[in-house]
Amino acid sequence: MAVKRVRLIIQYDGTEYVGWQTQPNGVTVQAELERALLEVTGERIALHGSGRTDSGVHARAQVAHFDTGARMAADKFAVALNTHLPRDIRVLWSEETDAQFHARFSAKQKQYRYVIQLGPHALVATRRTALHVHTALDVPLMRQAAADCVGTHDFAAFMSAGVTMENTVRTIFSSEWTQAGPYLTYDVAGSGFLYNMVRILAGTMLEIGKHALPPDAVKRAIASKRRGDAGATAPAHGLTLYRVRYPGFDTEERLTAAYGGALPDMF
Amino acid sequence: MAVKRVRLIIQYDGTEYVGWQTQPNGVTVQAELERALLEVTGERIALHGSGRTDSGVHARAQVAHFDTGARMAADKFAVALNTHLPRDIRVLWSEETDAQFHARFSAKQKQYRYVIQLGPHALVATRRTALHVHTALDVPLMRQAAADCVGTHDFAAFMSAGVTMENTVRTIFSSEWTQAGPYLTYDVAGSGFLYNMVRILAGTMLEIGKHALPPDAVKRAIASKRRGDAGATAPAHGLTLYRVRYPGFDTEERLTAAYGGALPDMF
Repeated sequence: MAVKRVRLIIQYDGTEYVGWQTQPNGVTVQAELERALLEVTGERIALHGSGRTDSGVHARAQVAHFDTGARMAADKFAVALNTHLPRDIRVLWSEETDAQFHARFSAKQKQYRYVIQLGPHALVATRRTALHVHTALDVPLMRQAAADCVGTHDFAAFMSAGVTMENTVRTIFSSEWTQAGPYLTYDVAGSGFLYNMVRILAGTMLEIGKHALPPDAVKRAIASKRRGDAGATAPAHGLTLYRVRYPGFDTEERLTAAYGGALPDMF
Repeated sequence: MAVKRVRLIIQYDGTEYVGWQTQPNGVTVQAELERALLEVTGERIALHGSGRTDSGVHARAQVAHFDTGARMAADKFAVALNTHLPRDIRVLWSEETDAQFHARFSAKQKQYRYVIQLGPHALVATRRTALHVHTALDVPLMRQAAADCVGTHDFAAFMSAGVTMENTVRTIFSSEWTQAGPYLTYDVAGSGFLYNMVRILAGTMLEIGKHALPPDAVKRAIASKRRGDAGATAPAHGLTLYRVRYPGFDTEERLTAAYGGALPDMF
């Protein structure tokens, strides 16, 4: 039986799921996909994602791979899986890849997006994907704090308390807030992220924007490595895994080509 | 007891509702709002919308008014009602208006939007608000057909069969398709619309785009006044009531000012 490795780009609204990875309580995105793979192939297949997303976090472009002996052409898996998936999970792309590709270990860059919706009331269209904040925020201070993250730093302060990691040094390539209409959007790209790191970064900058933490709180927490010097973890529903890049494979390029233009910003 | 008239701008995701107007079966948006008004004021209040939206149709900016003897300042109603509303219905704005204002009869212009999402799979972000079409469409033909609607015409062919209306003449101010990324968006503004008119127009142009109807099908159906000459009614979930304009009151201007910029396009 010829075994091939298949690579997927997956989009999901994380509202109804307890995160990406299979766990005892609640339904995960990975479990839904593995169930669909079983229905399509008859095989019990282990799906490998580029990384976990927490309960309630969304993905505009998650990448995953699996091995199968099924005869189905790799590019047909997207259609086949979608017929067995709920509408809040979609496989947007499927293709064969070489056996050296690994969704997690081959990833070179990940981009996350955290969206804040400003204004007096929570807009219906983005109630599931943006954090509504009705107070004024000091955006220039948030922008400066975002710039303070760029580079290679020990982000030990930006990891959930109780988690232990041998190496808490990560490299951030870009980190910035942009404002458009009622949305204030934080985009951060890096080689990798610690558990809850983006949500703690966003939460710290949100407190800086409210003048509840000093303007240099991010810089200080990087230096002290103490979780207590950073801000609260921002709510999960504002966070989206936006883009993953590999050598020769970029979710954004692939989707833009497949869908005749850039996908919607908000997701 | 001093009675005042209050005007609201309301946004809703119509997916879970059987339309705007109170009816025996299922939950309506109007009923949810009237329940919230009862909880806030203790009064049984009749809410008047700018017009009905069908089951499953959304509103980015529906306008409604009501009269109340409540002491609460008119601009506080938005916050108060939202605490009693589900998250897929939001009052985005409330203000006092004069007793001559009527949400339905004072309206001068309404804009509807019908969104088609192209590409191989239905994107998660717009699964509720766009019709997914995976076949190629002849967009120039659809654009020409949209232009054929502009002006004052008898739109009798673009009304659900079985409905009778004395006057089926309506004036369309603008009617066009625009393409951006994977979205093909139909915007139509007019003095008023017949029952299901926008969905039948969109459905007819969709069939023109698929070469299932001749390029001049809209023009021919306007001339013949026969429902059978127009295309099928497009699915409800792609349609959104986008904007309503009155003398001195425009939902788009008011929301742009209140939210610090234009609201998201997709809703």
